[in-house]
Amino acid sequence: MSEQKLPSRTEDFSEWYNTIVQRADLADYGPARGTMIVKPYGWSLWENIQAALDKRFKATGHVNAGFPMFIPKSFLEREKKHVEGFSPELAVVTIGGGETLEEPLVVRPTSETTIGYAYSKWIKSYRDLPVLINLWNSVVRWELRTRLFLRTLEFWWQEGHTAHATYEEAEFETRQMLDIYADFAENEAAVPVFKGRKSEAERFAGADQTYSIEAMMGDRKALQAGTSHNLGQNFAKAFDIKYQDKGNELQYCWTTSWGLSTRFVGAIIMVHGDDQGLILPPRLAPHQVVIVPIYKKDDERAAVMEAAQKIQKELIAAEVRVKVDDRDESPGFKYHDWEMRGVPLRIEIGPKDVAKGSVALARRDQPGKEGKTFVSQVGIAATVVDTLKSIQQTLYDRALAFREANTYDPKDYEEFKRAVEKGFAFSYWCGERECETQIKEETKATTRCIPFEGQSGESGVCIRCGKPAMEKAVFAKAY
Amino acid sequence: MSEQKLPSRTEDFSEWYNTIVQRADLADYGPARGTMIVKPYGWSLWENIQAALDKRFKATGHVNAGFPMFIPKSFLEREKKHVEGFSPELAVVTIGGGETLEEPLVVRPTSETTIGYAYSKWIKSYRDLPVLINLWNSVVRWELRTRLFLRTLEFWWQEGHTAHATYEEAEFETRQMLDIYADFAENEAAVPVFKGRKSEAERFAGADQTYSIEAMMGDRKALQAGTSHNLGQNFAKAFDIKYQDKGNELQYCWTTSWGLSTRFVGAIIMVHGDDQGLILPPRLAPHQVVIVPIYKKDDERAAVMEAAQKIQKELIAAEVRVKVDDRDESPGFKYHDWEMRGVPLRIEIGPKDVAKGSVALARRDQPGKEGKTFVSQVGIAATVVDTLKSIQQTLYDRALAFREANTYDPKDYEEFKRAVEKGFAFSYWCGERECETQIKEETKATTRCIPFEGQSGESGVCIRCGKPAMEKAVFAKAY
Repeated sequence: MSEQKLPSRTEDFSEWYNTIVQRADLADYGPARGTMIVKPYGWSLWENIQAALDKRFKATGHVNAGFPMFIPKSFLEREKKHVEGFSPELAVVTIGGGETLEEPLVVRPTSETTIGYAYSKWIKSYRDLPVLINLWNSVVRWELRTRLFLRTLEFWWQEGHTAHATYEEAEFETRQMLDIYADFAENEAAVPVFKGRKSEAERFAGADQTYSIEAMMGDRKALQAGTSHNLGQNFAKAFDIKYQDKGNELQYCWTTSWGLSTRFVGAIIMVHGDDQGLILPPRLAPHQVVIVPIYKKDDERAAVMEAAQKIQKELIAAEVRVKVDDRDESPGFKYHDWEMRGVPLRIEIGPKDVAKGSVALARRDQPGKEGKTFVSQVGIAATVVDTLKSIQQTLYDRALAFREANTYDPKDYEEFKRAVEKGFAFSYWCGERECETQIKEETKATTRCIPFEGQSGESGVCIRCGKPAMEKAVFAKAY
Repeated sequence: MSEQKLPSRTEDFSEWYNTIVQRADLADYGPARGTMIVKPYGWSLWENIQAALDKRFKATGHVNAGFPMFIPKSFLEREKKHVEGFSPELAVVTIGGGETLEEPLVVRPTSETTIGYAYSKWIKSYRDLPVLINLWNSVVRWELRTRLFLRTLEFWWQEGHTAHATYEEAEFETRQMLDIYADFAENEAAVPVFKGRKSEAERFAGADQTYSIEAMMGDRKALQAGTSHNLGQNFAKAFDIKYQDKGNELQYCWTTSWGLSTRFVGAIIMVHGDDQGLILPPRLAPHQVVIVPIYKKDDERAAVMEAAQKIQKELIAAEVRVKVDDRDESPGFKYHDWEMRGVPLRIEIGPKDVAKGSVALARRDQPGKEGKTFVSQVGIAATVVDTLKSIQQTLYDRALAFREANTYDPKDYEEFKRAVEKGFAFSYWCGERECETQIKEETKATTRCIPFEGQSGESGVCIRCGKPAMEKAVFAKAY
């Protein structure tokens, strides 16, 4: 399966990506156009992403629930901007149980509207607030050009939906969830991100404010990796979500929503992978370590397998996710296969190692001889745990250095145009939608976000129009 | 919210059930007819069910994956019995992205057909077998009469799909998964089940053999609580799932599928609940213990809360799921509320208990004085763990005794008719479909399964037609 060479990452990033998704056994297309099958190895990665996020959601007081996939079409029309944003992308059920439906049902593109319906029933008093609910599900958006993980008709995600008594609480929640996404991206996925505010044009349909985390991929394009929306009272007014305050007055709630999807798997591939295949951050890897036993003769097998299993046991006790590859294939085949699948650390053990009480460690982040060391079997669990931490840190540092090396501060618009051809531009922008549109038309770069950090606090002039500008934005071509 | 009295369980079981689902905050209807919203408390119960099953699936070598919800309509038509069984219940997407689709898409009622498509691509050789995949998702079946958890347009479940080289391996898998369901039902949910084979008429559409677990509800009706299907080579032939065997010959695979759904939440409610509300088995309860602090004056509050939090800490350390209810409500309100929600064990602590170093324990399975004891705060974690085990066992024993008391061995068809009015009948049956249909028409009872256990090994005569019969079946009215 992984016999042929990968396309080169630098020469054809797009083909490299498509090939890796297939060869590393992450995903495949489904029978209906543009749908995705996430294969077990890819799903296991997604389960680890889910666990890392779910832990953070629960620690901040959120609970999960299950909401229906079908939404009466009229519901979507209640919030004007929301329906404008989503109606071109809808999948519509018109037949149920053999009969034409009186009112067609939309397959959810996102659940603000069913949440609105439920919250207006459930919330009566200030005592019922805040409501902090998250959903793990899949949603459907009718995309014409699809790519596995990055853009498919159906994708998996979580969508958080909260309701609060005040604007301040809703804004706190929106920012808190963005911080959680950034913490997850950087500390679990080793993906450095810009945290910031979206421009008005890039906002979620129906939000007062959208925040996002933005990451630089290996081809120096941007990927929006998570978003958090302050919905103001827009959905509360559209769905009549009201509470009685302490003074017995009826008030509209303030709501938020926030989501992170299987798209993030695409980010992990594109940030860390190399010409040998995937490289997975140890904290999210389905297998953190694979042990490859090496033997030529059958009489060597028993001793080698015994040592391999002993090491496996010690690693499991240290909560390392480890697999012994005892397939009837050559060691070379196995090295190649696990490199393609991005397993962070490989342990090789042969008869000589058994005799010497050692093993060879091969780091996936440093292919070739420099990443290979020989270590004692004594204390192997501690050695492995330390090495995994070091790999995690190396991946993060490397991605950050790459982003910094490819983020520019152009002096004028001519430099800006060249900058967004080869990376990110961090430039003053007047904040006008017209100016933003023209930049997009002229360069294909969009405002990714207006970062919270890295602003000088001083005003400047817009990189395109020269008008006064208060803040810098990150501009880039994006997925 | 839980102020009014519940309808009586014996007088109006159906209304009792509907009211409990609402008052215990388990679920609600969605805006589209017949769809369900599983509320956070109900979802937390479902998450515990998922964890208990997922652990068992993974321990037997299964892996999870994600499959698309949309299936091209023509796919369903490839297996003749499958399409006959499911076509009356389909939801059909005919419009996508504003355009009428050339081929309509069905929202999955179950995934055998997309699995067939994928397995035919993925499986080449005997080395690729077995394939052992499970999916956690939701499916849609267009039901006209709906009831929360028991029958809704969309429900959540897991669906396992495996492919094997031989009939024997597929049959082993089918039975293994049935055993896992029974083990889960009895040891996690405290729900005793009959394990057995379905009659031909009751088989899954497209299966060679269907096995099920069947439980008796509190109104003495049956509920099918999990099914496991040996699909033979039916789907392998319809979808061309072939492998090259060791002798280089192409062979069709043998496949299985098996599922357990949110319906099981309905079973838990109907098996264990009483006139005070829900009773949850400790192993699955979202909160196993709730601590209710009792104080009248503000100066008592600090000491009581300190003791409550100390106990909470000890219970968390012992891996007990515990909640301190510090809401600004009366103790009576809280007792009532947690009884309704079925929390297995309540700890009450007031100023006198603080002084004496004791607490009151109130068991949910023994409401009133008999379930209340006073115990020392010293060693509270061990006491609680033991009490939870005892509650789990009591619930199981009680449900089994109830089922045994209401399962009959009628002597003739007249007795049989009376038996299925008041419980289960375990009777010889000739195995003829015609006879089964007539029993159903005359009594509304169906064959639930032909149990593996409890057969005498001797032949007898069919309870209805008097023809020779080899085996006994369980007959009952069913959900």
